[in-house]
Amino acid sequence: MRELYELCGSDPQLLFSPYCWRVRLALQHKGLDFESRPLIFTDKAPLACSGQTLVPVLRDGEQVVHDSVAIFAYLDRTYPANPLLGDGVAATRARLLEKVLFQSVRMPLLKILLPRVQGVIAAADQAYFRSSREKALGMSLEAFADPQAGEEALRKALQPLEAWLAESTYLDGESSAGSDYLVAGLLFWAWCLGTQPWADDSAVDRWFRRLLARYEAQYGPVQRAL
Amino acid sequence: MRELYELCGSDPQLLFSPYCWRVRLALQHKGLDFESRPLIFTDKAPLACSGQTLVPVLRDGEQVVHDSVAIFAYLDRTYPANPLLGDGVAATRARLLEKVLFQSVRMPLLKILLPRVQGVIAAADQAYFRSSREKALGMSLEAFADPQAGEEALRKALQPLEAWLAESTYLDGESSAGSDYLVAGLLFWAWCLGTQPWADDSAVDRWFRRLLARYEAQYGPVQRAL
Repeated sequence: MRELYELCGSDPQLLFSPYCWRVRLALQHKGLDFESRPLIFTDKAPLACSGQTLVPVLRDGEQVVHDSVAIFAYLDRTYPANPLLGDGVAATRARLLEKVLFQSVRMPLLKILLPRVQGVIAAADQAYFRSSREKALGMSLEAFADPQAGEEALRKALQPLEAWLAESTYLDGESSAGSDYLVAGLLFWAWCLGTQPWADDSAVDRWFRRLLARYEAQYGPVQRAL
Repeated sequence: MRELYELCGSDPQLLFSPYCWRVRLALQHKGLDFESRPLIFTDKAPLACSGQTLVPVLRDGEQVVHDSVAIFAYLDRTYPANPLLGDGVAATRARLLEKVLFQSVRMPLLKILLPRVQGVIAAADQAYFRSSREKALGMSLEAFADPQAGEEALRKALQPLEAWLAESTYLDGESSAGSDYLVAGLLFWAWCLGTQPWADDSAVDRWFRRLLARYEAQYGPVQRAL
């Protein structure tokens, strides 16, 4: 049995973690079935098997793997068809892209999405979310959240991807692979929280909607916050 | 005979184009000898063979190739040992990294380096440089140049590379390859213009100096502006 431990809001159907979305897209890419184990932030007990406390955690038979990029590497080792990261320098470059785009795309999205996250998480998670994020950010949520500044920074961060996707179907070329899912997970985060802070009918938007349509064709409509 | 048409200042020994530096590093990587053909900006006639007007241009026997990334691809096709971009998704990801890092690293460097470029180019190039750059930037050189803002933006843009290089010898892993030279060319640009707008003894600095030392061990000291 394959199980994905993933983050949910007070509504267990509302899955919004960008890292968990990466893994869902990767499992679809590999054609691997799984059962979802939605957890709220503070429901840490089921993660003990992974030796740490953060989702996503993939339990695949006897194997337990955490961290989205490590899960991609595990899936490539265990199910080599349809590589996600691939081998050698291809894998190295996917990891480097993740590091570079994570900073430039994730931080602006966080400025936009913080209030929405607070709106969807369980009452039991509110204090945990605030204290863990304020510690990581070094400031209060209210001082950090700034949807308008976030949208401006996001627009700039997406410019090279917009230029790329105007000429290429996917980030990884003619077919989607690891780089696509590592970045798209961040956009699914926004989408599931009920917003689309990138331009309608931009190349980025058309790329995102190709991945979304493929996902929904297999798994049904993605639950979004109102 | 292999010839590299590349940009020089009023001193023909002062080579400072980031794109030409990429190609020098790539030719060294491939172990290919070449003769330098330094040109000032307005000396366009020798480039006519390439059907366009910008350096770098590589003439390799009968073949003439322009554009640094296209030259990398040409070198891989023609001299497959020691890949620069490599094949398939590895090459795709190197091109995507170039697009992403070009925006985030090059623009801050340009804000820092503009006055230095004006200080080293030939008198005959001054009007061309001003009009071509002001057209591309949509503003006067004086309005765009801002070394202090550039250093702050560069520091931020280098953060993911600093984190990466703290754990990896090169951008492309254990050995340097195309991604390293595509980014390092931008730092050679600053270096040759007489400045080092990244932190001394940072992981980025140690990486740059490894590439510089390897280059100088083969070709001798790099000429820098005073």
